[in-house]
Amino acid sequence: MEERVHAAVRDTADEIDTMEIRGAATIAEAAAHALRRQATASDADTPEAFKSELRAAARTLYETRPTAVSLPNALRYVLRGMSNTTVEGLRQNVVESADEFCDRLERAQADLGQVGANRLRDGDTIMTHCHSTDALACVEAAVKQGKHIEAIVKETRPRNQGHITAQELHEMGVPVTLVVDSAARRYLNDVDHVLVGADAVAADGSVINKIGTSGLAVNARDRGTPIMVAAQTLKLHPDTLTGHTVDIEMRDTEEILDADTLAELGNPTVRNPAFDVTPPRYVDAIVTERGQFPPESIVILMRELFGEGTTEPWAEP
Amino acid sequence: MEERVHAAVRDTADEIDTMEIRGAATIAEAAAHALRRQATASDADTPEAFKSELRAAARTLYETRPTAVSLPNALRYVLRGMSNTTVEGLRQNVVESADEFCDRLERAQADLGQVGANRLRDGDTIMTHCHSTDALACVEAAVKQGKHIEAIVKETRPRNQGHITAQELHEMGVPVTLVVDSAARRYLNDVDHVLVGADAVAADGSVINKIGTSGLAVNARDRGTPIMVAAQTLKLHPDTLTGHTVDIEMRDTEEILDADTLAELGNPTVRNPAFDVTPPRYVDAIVTERGQFPPESIVILMRELFGEGTTEPWAEP
Amino acid sequence: MEERVHAAVRDTADEIDTMEIRGAATIAEAAAHALRRQATASDADTPEAFKSELRAAARTLYETRPTAVSLPNALRYVLRGMSNTTVEGLRQNVVESADEFCDRLERAQADLGQVGANRLRDGDTIMTHCHSTDALACVEAAVKQGKHIEAIVKETRPRNQGHITAQELHEMGVPVTLVVDSAARRYLNDVDHVLVGADAVAADGSVINKIGTSGLAVNARDRGTPIMVAAQTLKLHPDTLTGHTVDIEMRDTEEILDADTLAELGNPTVRNPAFDVTPPRYVDAIVTERGQFPPESIVILMRELFGEGTTEPWAEP
Amino acid sequence: MEERVHAAVRDTADEIDTMEIRGAATIAEAAAHALRRQATASDADTPEAFKSELRAAARTLYETRPTAVSLPNALRYVLRGMSNTTVEGLRQNVVESADEFCDRLERAQADLGQVGANRLRDGDTIMTHCHSTDALACVEAAVKQGKHIEAIVKETRPRNQGHITAQELHEMGVPVTLVVDSAARRYLNDVDHVLVGADAVAADGSVINKIGTSGLAVNARDRGTPIMVAAQTLKLHPDTLTGHTVDIEMRDTEEILDADTLAELGNPTVRNPAFDVTPPRYVDAIVTERGQFPPESIVILMRELFGEGTTEPWAEP
Amino acid sequence: MEERVHAAVRDTADEIDTMEIRGAATIAEAAAHALRRQATASDADTPEAFKSELRAAARTLYETRPTAVSLPNALRYVLRGMSNTTVEGLRQNVVESADEFCDRLERAQADLGQVGANRLRDGDTIMTHCHSTDALACVEAAVKQGKHIEAIVKETRPRNQGHITAQELHEMGVPVTLVVDSAARRYLNDVDHVLVGADAVAADGSVINKIGTSGLAVNARDRGTPIMVAAQTLKLHPDTLTGHTVDIEMRDTEEILDADTLAELGNPTVRNPAFDVTPPRYVDAIVTERGQFPPESIVILMRELFGEGTTEPWAEP
Amino acid sequence: MEERVHAAVRDTADEIDTMEIRGAATIAEAAAHALRRQATASDADTPEAFKSELRAAARTLYETRPTAVSLPNALRYVLRGMSNTTVEGLRQNVVESADEFCDRLERAQADLGQVGANRLRDGDTIMTHCHSTDALACVEAAVKQGKHIEAIVKETRPRNQGHITAQELHEMGVPVTLVVDSAARRYLNDVDHVLVGADAVAADGSVINKIGTSGLAVNARDRGTPIMVAAQTLKLHPDTLTGHTVDIEMRDTEEILDADTLAELGNPTVRNPAFDVTPPRYVDAIVTERGQFPPESIVILMRELFGEGTTEPWAEP
Repeated sequence: MEERVHAAVRDTADEIDTMEIRGAATIAEAAAHALRRQATASDADTPEAFKSELRAAARTLYETRPTAVSLPNALRYVLRGMSNTTVEGLRQNVVESADEFCDRLERAQADLGQVGANRLRDGDTIMTHCHSTDALACVEAAVKQGKHIEAIVKETRPRNQGHITAQELHEMGVPVTLVVDSAARRYLNDVDHVLVGADAVAADGSVINKIGTSGLAVNARDRGTPIMVAAQTLKLHPDTLTGHTVDIEMRDTEEILDADTLAELGNPTVRNPAFDVTPPRYVDAIVTERGQFPPESIVILMRELFGEGTTEPWAEP
Repeated sequence: MEERVHAAVRDTADEIDTMEIRGAATIAEAAAHALRRQATASDADTPEAFKSELRAAARTLYETRPTAVSLPNALRYVLRGMSNTTVEGLRQNVVESADEFCDRLERAQADLGQVGANRLRDGDTIMTHCHSTDALACVEAAVKQGKHIEAIVKETRPRNQGHITAQELHEMGVPVTLVVDSAARRYLNDVDHVLVGADAVAADGSVINKIGTSGLAVNARDRGTPIMVAAQTLKLHPDTLTGHTVDIEMRDTEEILDADTLAELGNPTVRNPAFDVTPPRYVDAIVTERGQFPPESIVILMRELFGEGTTEPWAEP
Repeated sequence: MEERVHAAVRDTADEIDTMEIRGAATIAEAAAHALRRQATASDADTPEAFKSELRAAARTLYETRPTAVSLPNALRYVLRGMSNTTVEGLRQNVVESADEFCDRLERAQADLGQVGANRLRDGDTIMTHCHSTDALACVEAAVKQGKHIEAIVKETRPRNQGHITAQELHEMGVPVTLVVDSAARRYLNDVDHVLVGADAVAADGSVINKIGTSGLAVNARDRGTPIMVAAQTLKLHPDTLTGHTVDIEMRDTEEILDADTLAELGNPTVRNPAFDVTPPRYVDAIVTERGQFPPESIVILMRELFGEGTTEPWAEP
Repeated sequence: MEERVHAAVRDTADEIDTMEIRGAATIAEAAAHALRRQATASDADTPEAFKSELRAAARTLYETRPTAVSLPNALRYVLRGMSNTTVEGLRQNVVESADEFCDRLERAQADLGQVGANRLRDGDTIMTHCHSTDALACVEAAVKQGKHIEAIVKETRPRNQGHITAQELHEMGVPVTLVVDSAARRYLNDVDHVLVGADAVAADGSVINKIGTSGLAVNARDRGTPIMVAAQTLKLHPDTLTGHTVDIEMRDTEEILDADTLAELGNPTVRNPAFDVTPPRYVDAIVTERGQFPPESIVILMRELFGEGTTEPWAEP
Repeated sequence: MEERVHAAVRDTADEIDTMEIRGAATIAEAAAHALRRQATASDADTPEAFKSELRAAARTLYETRPTAVSLPNALRYVLRGMSNTTVEGLRQNVVESADEFCDRLERAQADLGQVGANRLRDGDTIMTHCHSTDALACVEAAVKQGKHIEAIVKETRPRNQGHITAQELHEMGVPVTLVVDSAARRYLNDVDHVLVGADAVAADGSVINKIGTSGLAVNARDRGTPIMVAAQTLKLHPDTLTGHTVDIEMRDTEEILDADTLAELGNPTVRNPAFDVTPPRYVDAIVTERGQFPPESIVILMRELFGEGTTEPWAEP
Repeated sequence: MEERVHAAVRDTADEIDTMEIRGAATIAEAAAHALRRQATASDADTPEAFKSELRAAARTLYETRPTAVSLPNALRYVLRGMSNTTVEGLRQNVVESADEFCDRLERAQADLGQVGANRLRDGDTIMTHCHSTDALACVEAAVKQGKHIEAIVKETRPRNQGHITAQELHEMGVPVTLVVDSAARRYLNDVDHVLVGADAVAADGSVINKIGTSGLAVNARDRGTPIMVAAQTLKLHPDTLTGHTVDIEMRDTEEILDADTLAELGNPTVRNPAFDVTPPRYVDAIVTERGQFPPESIVILMRELFGEGTTEPWAEP
């Protein structure tokens, strides 16, 4: 079936895999667009063939980063839209669902940004880890509210997503100080809020985010600096309602050091986990497009959205 | 006066400056050797000229990294040896003092290693930060005691001294796992001891060490993992007895990112502090060649060694 | 429009401003009464003029202490009642709404008192800060349940509202020990519950209460003494659902020291914040008329009561 | 009325009293069975007499351990079923209600086990305290999922219910290490999850469980070991919604030492509380058949199940 | 014997009692002066009578505030000087001892100030509690070193010694912000060092200081703000070497409220402890004229100064 | 050589092994007596034979519990006394050394008791773990000082040494409450001091004591209850000065359950460690016959007593 997957879908899958496309909302949007493209380009001649193609495309996308919670949510949203009984009708369904999903996604971030911005005060300094468009939406909204915000940006080894954060904050007019990850504690005293995104949020209030988040949160708590997590409800992980844990992706060791250096060092084992888990007691608030929540009560919002989580979110009809 | 400083001294100074020579004991030894070389190469024709040359050399060395506590201690030790009244006699003094200093230094590390090794048990896994010959001496002695030790090594941005640590541990036969700094917390559960060196130890029990040490120590305490600091008494900072704080060197921002990337990011401020300060409540033991001490009592050892610290350690006669 | 505001409203506003009227329930009740008085005394000849008068009165009251969360809630409740289309009908509306509001308010405190009393055991000693009728309702209900309760009362500088608390507890037959605020920690060992009220409760579980509450809560947590906050749902702050923070009123510095003393001391800056913010991790339970809640889940009760908080609570139709 | 209580009910009551029947689910099931037996054996000739008998039986059972939260819940469930107007119809009602209750109870534990098992990973070691079928259901489900689980079992003085736990884990094929209660901290480093049951869970998130649970939880938190509480919703204590505290049963001192030893020791006071209270900040997740919850949000599930808890759960119509 | 005590001694005793003379160094100095005055004014005609007079004067002074550790130390120092065998010689002894004691006292504070100043950095903000000349000496020395220091001053109920602190800091050119005691936590984020004095320091590292110090220290630790205690070695309490605890003086309740108010409030019990005890884990450094010490090692300095503390410091020969 | 060991020595060794003789001071005394007995009963005919016999006896005693720090200290003290050159003279040496050791031991406990008693106040309640004559000496001295002391005694599984403690406290007139180990936390609120002994104290301030001490200390710290360790200097472990750790004895599993029960439970692994390690941050004071010390400074007392600990304490000349 793979051969029916459109080249544009494969490109998107590759870009997700290599992290050219990164950040949960960006991934979700790209996935929706890719399915839309598959639909518009499809030359399937039966509704069944069309649906099968779309599902194959979805699977291709899904398998690049199965731990990215937003990816299956996007795919599910778009596929669910397929209700028509003709190929043309189904094509129209997918186009509309994908657009709707993206619209909703866009509004969600803006709404979330407003909530997060309300937590910031004029003159505040934030510290960021990795690159999160949800987190940046909070800063952007705060700047639009006329607040002066400054930022201390951790570079976020191994892929230095902090550079993107620095650049985008600069474009918003936010003065940026860039530091290595290890320097975070030294600068926490100058910080009013640690502000990070999330790759997933679990029903027990744990936040799964870029490796290094939990160590930063422990230090922030130790110094009394509040920690705010910006996470659209897209990041709430339904499986965790029934106790499932979130698998932590282990990424390529070449992100950390190249093969030559590795050999020089005597070929040590290299571990490159993409994420870590921050327990709720180190987080002050999770900011969503539906308002803010202490992490310990996010389970209730999840139950509103997903029921008791006993059905598989990615299930095909 | 600078012109009288020997090229070998200048080379050593440069290598200290660029961190080709790094680690407090290595710096101290190199500084002693450099003064020895200045003495043997000197063509001074009066004792005064000779002494003045040596002091100029000492100053040149000192100014490369004034915050490296072992550097002035080494210089002081060697210069204090100059008691003779002829140029030849003074030359002999310097050679002997430098050799004596290096002998003592070498023994100190071995003795310290023995103490540290005694704290480790067969089968223990340690976590390291940066590169410390004192810390490695503990592991080496433990291995020689027949203990199986494994290590999780943090790469230690921005200069990746963790690579040297990984290599040296590998040569001792210690299995190494290399991780980025941000991954430390995730692996603390597998760790029996955090084992780090120190650039300086203060009278209030604070440990000044490579940036990132304090954040690691806070996380280790949070998980109940003991933190051991290996520090020869050379690292005890006499000035701190009278309340002086240790200045934290700010290093070149090019260590963090190059000028082109900097410009791309909109020229953020970059801060690159070399060290941070770990309060004693996050450290379990300081291991020296004189035995082990809780950090809160190291002040008493300092008083034994330096009196009440009211005279300037770097003072010229 | 101001001239149409009744003198009785102005008096109430003044008394709120000078804190003769203090405590959230008392303020809310006074505000409802004041609007009722404005309605009964109004000689407006059109429904529009009547409504406008009432709104002006509401604004006058509101502006005395915009940070007192119960004040806009009371005003909103009463104004919302205006549905009739004649002046007489509107007058009747306001009278009925104001009475209803006060009835409901009264029941709320009794119900809350019952819940709080259930948490206390016979023989318990409580520690109080400031003066809170909600907190005292818990003690009163416990005494009525036949429990022997003792109290350690902090005087609560700068306005010594602890004196009122002491007096009212004395009238309930509760033996009182009065201490300065600084002595709280010393007596926490003798205390079974810290029991305070709240000026406002935020969606992130923070409790905004009289300055000094957070420092007391941190000390109580440090000693393992439970902290109970008695707060009618009237104190739940809808704006905080969308991340808004609660402004902390800065009160007159004369409450702290008079102008002569100020001059004698060289005219230091004086800061007199009325409230501070206690994070939820230092609070064990929030007791309301709707039951008790850990502070981390109060957001769910707020969502039941106010929806997602995206409309301005003070907005006029 | 007591004379009408069937001998089988009395036997069950005795066995609950002497802890031959122990564990909340087992007690609830036994109570339901006992009422069923009373119904089938009854020779009451009027519906009123029948109902009165059943209530007397319920009261007899209830009074053996009024603090066992599952007991009144079971009794309430069965008694509520009595809707028919004839003796035979009522008998049928009770039989059906009792069977239904037991079915539901059984399913609940299996569902809960699934949720708890999802939190465990292959290779995890758990530590248990006392004997809890809910906790063991989690392990059993994990084993069935093909995970290798090991267990460190605390003996749980004074009645050594840890022995039963050890035996049942052994039967599941789980390797067991048995230790005295005091040795728990020493082995916490080898443990991935502390896994305990609950006698009751309160609305403020407190967990009432076998004496020793809270001390274990404090130590687990101190070492960063997660604490999971397995508790069917049957254990959620409705009275606590309105602030009621759970009475801690004081058991016979002979469980601790016999009369002769007591006399030898000079007849000290002996205190033998059956349970203690663990505050929510020491618990990571409460696992129920309805999913997992941070303890701070369990109040919301209680409100779903019981409303605001203002009516007496044990009340007869 | 009392009648032989000079009026000036009685005046000093009264002023110590009413706290017109306050602060440990000031009390010690006043006590030395008073004994000097007794000596110069004495018309005793035998050495025995002279000595007896001096001891009576010492006892009179001692009994005003037996808990003020500096008082017996001062008295002991002066009385020990009486070695001559004639009245005139003894008089001379006392004059010289008193002057010597005061000289030494003065130097001690200057030396201590230097050590404390070294811990402060240019631009630091300190928070003070009560009035301590030792603490102020640190600030004064820092200002003389050219550092810009700002201060947040707690008023320190019930006697508002913060006013004196504010005034003296103002005279040094230090910008002062004055707050009530309860506002301390709110401003701790703006503070680099909490800087307090001590009434006594115990061998277990506890600091006995003005009531409110321990609650402040707990809050400072919670926020990661360092706490520095400035205490001359005169404040080290020899009795505590052998486990003695320091009695906490209970002062007059009129300091808290007057008799009329007391009656109005229903005559509550009023407790007015002068001091509280801060455990060493909440203190970062004790600054003395002999250098700085972590509180846990101050016992070693005490053993240097007083031996093992088994003889009564106040014992008469 | 073994055959030359006297039966009385073997009996003592057996009684130490079976814990009939228990408690460090009792063991030390018994060991000294045993060597004395060996000396008086010896029929060796050369000094060498005599010495060899004594060393064999010492080794026999030593090997029963090599982890009991007081045992080698006692043996060393007595053996060191052998300076004479005749058998009779050596016999006399041993008798005198043994007597001297016991005298000193006895005084040490009384002196320590005085120091510990000084920390207790009239009306205090202590909590004990295991049986420690050092800890009881503190209570006894406090009672003799006229203080009313009450005690909560943990039974201390598996060997219930708490029973002995209860009995001895009863004989002192101290009211005793006996609880199982798991009930400790529940009663900590009623406790003013946790008071335990030590099997050994390490140079890093760790306290090695009966299994369960560390878990109790963590709970006591969590509730703010001070923890006092009573330990004669005999318990200070010289080897730890050079980093050596103290081996934890694993005792017979039959102490926990008998073979039949073991088999019934499916033969679980049973672990029965005799001791655990309490880090210094959970201990407030170590009370010795030389005064009290924070645990972090006990290393300094050890250096006074033993130098830098580089020679083997048990080495024979």
